[in-house]
Amino acid sequence: MKAAVIGYAQTKFKEHWDKGLRELISEAGNNALKSSNLKAEDIDNLICANTLAPLVNGQSNVNALCFEELGIKSSVSINCGDVSGSAAIRQAMFEICSGKSKIVMVLGVEKMTDLLSSQITSAVSMLLDHEWEVFNGATLASMYAMLTRIYMKKFKVKPEQIAKVSVKNHKNAVNNKFAQFPFEINVDSVIKGPSVDSPLKVLNCAAVCDGAAAIILCEESLAKKYTEKPVYLIGSGAGSDYLALHDREDFLEMKATKTAAEEAYKQAKIKPSDVSLAEVHDSFSISEILAVEDLGFAKKGSGFKFIEDGKTDLTGKLPINPSGGLKACGHPFAATGIRQAIEITMQLKDEAGKRQIKNAKIGLTHNLSGTGSTAIVNIFSR
Amino acid sequence: MKAAVIGYAQTKFKEHWDKGLRELISEAGNNALKSSNLKAEDIDNLICANTLAPLVNGQSNVNALCFEELGIKSSVSINCGDVSGSAAIRQAMFEICSGKSKIVMVLGVEKMTDLLSSQITSAVSMLLDHEWEVFNGATLASMYAMLTRIYMKKFKVKPEQIAKVSVKNHKNAVNNKFAQFPFEINVDSVIKGPSVDSPLKVLNCAAVCDGAAAIILCEESLAKKYTEKPVYLIGSGAGSDYLALHDREDFLEMKATKTAAEEAYKQAKIKPSDVSLAEVHDSFSISEILAVEDLGFAKKGSGFKFIEDGKTDLTGKLPINPSGGLKACGHPFAATGIRQAIEITMQLKDEAGKRQIKNAKIGLTHNLSGTGSTAIVNIFSR
Repeated sequence: MKAAVIGYAQTKFKEHWDKGLRELISEAGNNALKSSNLKAEDIDNLICANTLAPLVNGQSNVNALCFEELGIKSSVSINCGDVSGSAAIRQAMFEICSGKSKIVMVLGVEKMTDLLSSQITSAVSMLLDHEWEVFNGATLASMYAMLTRIYMKKFKVKPEQIAKVSVKNHKNAVNNKFAQFPFEINVDSVIKGPSVDSPLKVLNCAAVCDGAAAIILCEESLAKKYTEKPVYLIGSGAGSDYLALHDREDFLEMKATKTAAEEAYKQAKIKPSDVSLAEVHDSFSISEILAVEDLGFAKKGSGFKFIEDGKTDLTGKLPINPSGGLKACGHPFAATGIRQAIEITMQLKDEAGKRQIKNAKIGLTHNLSGTGSTAIVNIFSR
Repeated sequence: MKAAVIGYAQTKFKEHWDKGLRELISEAGNNALKSSNLKAEDIDNLICANTLAPLVNGQSNVNALCFEELGIKSSVSINCGDVSGSAAIRQAMFEICSGKSKIVMVLGVEKMTDLLSSQITSAVSMLLDHEWEVFNGATLASMYAMLTRIYMKKFKVKPEQIAKVSVKNHKNAVNNKFAQFPFEINVDSVIKGPSVDSPLKVLNCAAVCDGAAAIILCEESLAKKYTEKPVYLIGSGAGSDYLALHDREDFLEMKATKTAAEEAYKQAKIKPSDVSLAEVHDSFSISEILAVEDLGFAKKGSGFKFIEDGKTDLTGKLPINPSGGLKACGHPFAATGIRQAIEITMQLKDEAGKRQIKNAKIGLTHNLSGTGSTAIVNIFSR
């Protein structure tokens, strides 16, 4: 049995000064119901993805807020760092394929901007190894800066080449009304921008923001009842790795991504070359480059060139992050995996407007937590 | 298809000054593997339940710590407040019944005692409604105190009668070597003990502690390969309610419990009277009394009498919390639901030693989050 996507909605990703968790949940959840002409009582279960509310908003049990706003009678919460949204979709797939639930909503939400910058830096560093990395002063950005530096040295890559990732993603976001930064940037603006942690510049990093995204899945036999063009979740894989970078076998190979991808490809019965487009985890530019390699799209050490050569552009042979990615869409942690799934759904349904990719048949989402301790890969088809 | 429990292990629940999250995970996880002669590579996926590590230990992605200690290649984390452990078991059931995974480990862990008392009170109050309850000074204990007071007034119940819950549970724990408080108490020691929030006394409340618990589930057709006496998960339900007490239809009826129980009974094709024993959520004495009523074991307003009359004693017609419950076992949030499942498994396998219940055929676990915004009911059979 397969699960099918029959409805979706998201809020704009930005600093929502006028909205809290409740309002974001209400907007994404109720619009997702409307998009498939469903009512709350039609949904068997809701899986809520959230990772920062206990730290930022003093609120756990965010699934109960969903009950308040949407009225769906049963729900659970998943907190798995940045991959929470993709992990929730994977759990919904299991639930539907078990035959025990027919229709499941997956909703990811974060309200991250209620803290000072120093506080949110501290909050997101819990994604690293607290005892061995954070204790010594590491932050998420400092660890990714180190990975970037190692990659640049090993494969002789210049900052200008790394900058191409953000330039492409911002260009794609121009036509995405839900993106936090829907405008173009150039290599110069990346390179000459403020430094975060050398060699990382501000424009190499995805930004903190608020937002919610929801999709509705059902078993494949019911899908055509709710939508003319269902999109099917044909494969899903999860992978784990050490939390601390110093424990990893190879700094520049995300073992979690490889494990997750292997399982997802196997389940979907496809090869990397069958993928028409992908939404990958570009929380920092280097993570998109490593993802392109570890997902099997380019050889190790050539991911930057694959992107630089335009192969991942909207008109390239394998468009990556047509939505704008985490960089230009913004990265409200647990909402990101679901936003990625929405982009793939829109592309496979020919609903992506000015950023529509021609003949998109198979789309992949790739999501990491922290510096890659957990990865989820979900594969969708028309 | 059904899921079967084929292995289990837990650490002692107590203040583990000499152990952190890693050591607790290692002990419970590796012993669970040993209990069913399995190796890490035999496990398809691990679902880690944890709710307080981001707040108490500065650590998210606790599933990645499990990868480090156990070596299981893929994993996700679930954070759903106090019900996390039971919710993780439910998710594992879906995963196995989907046919996409054969063997899944569920591991719950908390290291709660690394904070000052005032800090842990603040951390656990995130389970309430932050905007409408915590903002005004409410704590978990103060909300349960209010429920206790309302129940006592409405049904004319004395503190001595409420105290019977803790007296029974402590008596049961005497024979549980993993319990935090394996000793007897009497009604007098409850009533004359220190007050937490009138009418709640210290001995009406489960205590903060550290601990981990793990079970291994597989599809039913494989179960006899790993254990002579598998225990089957025959039904599971989830239910939601408003976070804030003031929004509830009825203070003394846990709607989440009723919704979850209805689904679980239906799936298991049984009635409440078919249940041989139950482990219910007695974070505060009143929550056990309400559970006994809302699970359909006693009529509304008579739960306290059902317990007072000895019907839920180890030798009664429906033993409840034979392990000692949350009160005497301790309540390391996300580990609790899994510890409950272990108790039911032991009882159904005739492995419960001095606290063994004769002819136990069907066992139920009931787990709440906060003051009942989420409930999970899991039903097991021989």
